[in-house]
Amino acid sequence: MSATWPPRYDPAWRPAPDAEHWAPGLECAEPKKRDEVVLAKLRAQVQYAWERSPFYRRRWEAAGVSPARLRTLADLAKFPVVQKADLRAAQAAAPPFGDYLCIEPREVARIHGTSGTTGHPTVFGVGRDDWERIGEAHARVLWGAGLRPDDRVLIASFFSLYLGSWGALKGCERLGATVFPFGAGLPGQTLMAVQWAREMSATAFYGTPSYALHFAETARREGIEPRDFGFRTLFFSGEPGAGVAATKRLIEATFGGACIDMGSMAEMTPWMTNGECRRRTGMHLWQDIVYTQVCDPETFAPVPYGGEGTPVYTHLERTSQPMIRLVSGDLARWTDEPCPCGRTYPRLPGGLYGRIDDMFIVRGENIYPSAIEDTLRAIEGFGGEFRVIISRREAMDELLVRAEYAATHAADAPRAALAARMRERLRARLGVTPRIELVAAGELPRTEFKAKRVIDDRDLYKKGVANV
Amino acid sequence: MSATWPPRYDPAWRPAPDAEHWAPGLECAEPKKRDEVVLAKLRAQVQYAWERSPFYRRRWEAAGVSPARLRTLADLAKFPVVQKADLRAAQAAAPPFGDYLCIEPREVARIHGTSGTTGHPTVFGVGRDDWERIGEAHARVLWGAGLRPDDRVLIASFFSLYLGSWGALKGCERLGATVFPFGAGLPGQTLMAVQWAREMSATAFYGTPSYALHFAETARREGIEPRDFGFRTLFFSGEPGAGVAATKRLIEATFGGACIDMGSMAEMTPWMTNGECRRRTGMHLWQDIVYTQVCDPETFAPVPYGGEGTPVYTHLERTSQPMIRLVSGDLARWTDEPCPCGRTYPRLPGGLYGRIDDMFIVRGENIYPSAIEDTLRAIEGFGGEFRVIISRREAMDELLVRAEYAATHAADAPRAALAARMRERLRARLGVTPRIELVAAGELPRTEFKAKRVIDDRDLYKKGVANV
Repeated sequence: MSATWPPRYDPAWRPAPDAEHWAPGLECAEPKKRDEVVLAKLRAQVQYAWERSPFYRRRWEAAGVSPARLRTLADLAKFPVVQKADLRAAQAAAPPFGDYLCIEPREVARIHGTSGTTGHPTVFGVGRDDWERIGEAHARVLWGAGLRPDDRVLIASFFSLYLGSWGALKGCERLGATVFPFGAGLPGQTLMAVQWAREMSATAFYGTPSYALHFAETARREGIEPRDFGFRTLFFSGEPGAGVAATKRLIEATFGGACIDMGSMAEMTPWMTNGECRRRTGMHLWQDIVYTQVCDPETFAPVPYGGEGTPVYTHLERTSQPMIRLVSGDLARWTDEPCPCGRTYPRLPGGLYGRIDDMFIVRGENIYPSAIEDTLRAIEGFGGEFRVIISRREAMDELLVRAEYAATHAADAPRAALAARMRERLRARLGVTPRIELVAAGELPRTEFKAKRVIDDRDLYKKGVANV
Repeated sequence: MSATWPPRYDPAWRPAPDAEHWAPGLECAEPKKRDEVVLAKLRAQVQYAWERSPFYRRRWEAAGVSPARLRTLADLAKFPVVQKADLRAAQAAAPPFGDYLCIEPREVARIHGTSGTTGHPTVFGVGRDDWERIGEAHARVLWGAGLRPDDRVLIASFFSLYLGSWGALKGCERLGATVFPFGAGLPGQTLMAVQWAREMSATAFYGTPSYALHFAETARREGIEPRDFGFRTLFFSGEPGAGVAATKRLIEATFGGACIDMGSMAEMTPWMTNGECRRRTGMHLWQDIVYTQVCDPETFAPVPYGGEGTPVYTHLERTSQPMIRLVSGDLARWTDEPCPCGRTYPRLPGGLYGRIDDMFIVRGENIYPSAIEDTLRAIEGFGGEFRVIISRREAMDELLVRAEYAATHAADAPRAALAARMRERLRARLGVTPRIELVAAGELPRTEFKAKRVIDDRDLYKKGVANV
């Protein structure tokens, strides 16, 4: 650990292939010892944000805190949390990056974003140096998952806004593996991916858990037994499945390789700083890269180890859009019980197994019922009420929107046009194509609770909840 | 130009933003002077391939040539050409990379490939150092196109096998621009791309010409005038359109920015070494990166400037899978008439305007009628004859396959199943989803000429031919 901030890493350095840890001095340190490093980085990060970001200065001044108040890690809890809605508001006021961008816009190397399921997309502007540090952090976490330079990694997830694919690519590059960024999403592409995986003798797979199962079914239809791919490692983010015991068992039984759960939030890139090691005892919180506290969902005070709460994330080496106390909204339990790998990080033994709000995830996209409501209400002919049914077909999520049509649109032609319009508008807003089912106005019972509008019929999530 | 081979470039160096050339000493050199540099690189490249590649040694020994024979650039014509089929055969014999891979398989950083339209995909294994040089070469060519570090580039093409997107990304990164690798291909994605382009104030666009026109139509449907995006530069590869005068005029009139034609072959990555400069006088051949000769399509001897032939490409700084005298199969006319930009490279004033074989391009995919034939013939129920009709709907290519069904499949249900099977198989093979139209066996006139089976009904290509 260098004493300068932001840290600089030697892009050519790598551990010996038989080393279990990338940075054992940090990963296996006595936690109190490591906390000194974390605190030093945290203080530099907070000071940096204070100097460069009107967003943070405004909020911290309002809360009566400043960098000088940060003398211990416990002091961090005095700083106000950031909610995703705060980021969207800041970007609406100072487009496109918001006044938490701490570099010049022209220093932004990469733009990514959310697909704007809650009304307006969130824009990620990642600086050039941050992008290199993302590679470093990912490589370290992937090393812990058991990836090595002689691995041949098939990335089978869509390359667009979604950051998971890009982070996996950057991390594998830095780690020195051979990467095949095949992507996903186009009709017929899974069949091609199956053929390529065999052709290339891929040894590792990245995607979402549901896509991996779809991939296996596609292979079986082609007469290929998924174990014959020879994947030594399958690593996942974008969905909680890989941390759910039943799903993990299913994936490992299907492919014969280790199923590794990863992921935090796109805003936190490198978000894979929640990442399981090869022992699969739940995701480690790689605290010296991103400092994470599991907090009470009301007060946002950290809960003791053993308790349940929502992860709250803080960057420690981010210069472009640093997040300091960003509320994930996920639910998790954390523990400091030792892991046989020797890493002394806290862990999330059950992964991220729920939400504190009504958001749900379909094919890797975060979807809020409020966004569906908002979209439907702007369409002429909508009858006023709707339901959302999420199910799973051949291991792919399916989103059904059952919506009422107004009496003015009861005839066949306007009804068909209405359905097409709803499908197109929702698709553009959600990033996922829904099936639309129209019913006459008044047919659906009215409800006061948004959550009641959503029926999640997927095994994965049922098992996830049963597992808690 | 360093004297060592392969050359190493300083990844941090960039010209001043107001410089017109990245490397004026090479780009604007007296051609004879630059040829000395080209010859030195060529000799090193050929010697390297001779030492490392059984593929080249075998073929050169059979032709009675060796590196020692290469004393002038003219001597290169004595070396046998490489056809794409030779690469496929070499990969079938030594999978997956073929015995023209000159590095260890574990040194391959990136795997890409063709979608295998002619039966078996071709696999590209790009080494780590090559990948960096690709960035350097692209950046230089993009600089010539007028891109600068303050540009914000929207990449609106699919990120998967197709190398165009990845090269544009790498080049823009190296150039220091802000890149938004948005991708393309998913239903509804064009509408999102339109919204993001406005949101991000993108100043440059990369994709295929037909996709740019589709993008413009989508914008207009949303009430957005394409000129209001403010694209200063639109650069293209993957299709010949941007080099066709009528299409170039249409794109420039639609968007108000400069339409820049680029592209050579995926095998040649960096394939953008055919690239127009800001003056748009036809693609320059950036001879000190990739050495290109326009050759007679029968004898493969270079034709004089002013003549027509097929470009034959030779890498000058490729260590992973060097291509030495690779036949493109495209048709072009070349000239050495000066360009007002000051670059002294030869140029292709009409771009790549045709093919010497029956290949056609749909949505950026190379498609051979033989692959369609091959796929259909393996399906039970196929009636023996077919036609291919390529048309354009809303500026997107559409591929219609009209195929006969056998008498055994005349009933509704087996016929529908047959159509679905044809669609799925062709999609997996071609990378493009065709429309299938079934007719009874015997309805289509038999033909002996494969080319007669293909009807290309796209304006773009008609104009292209009319323009020659």
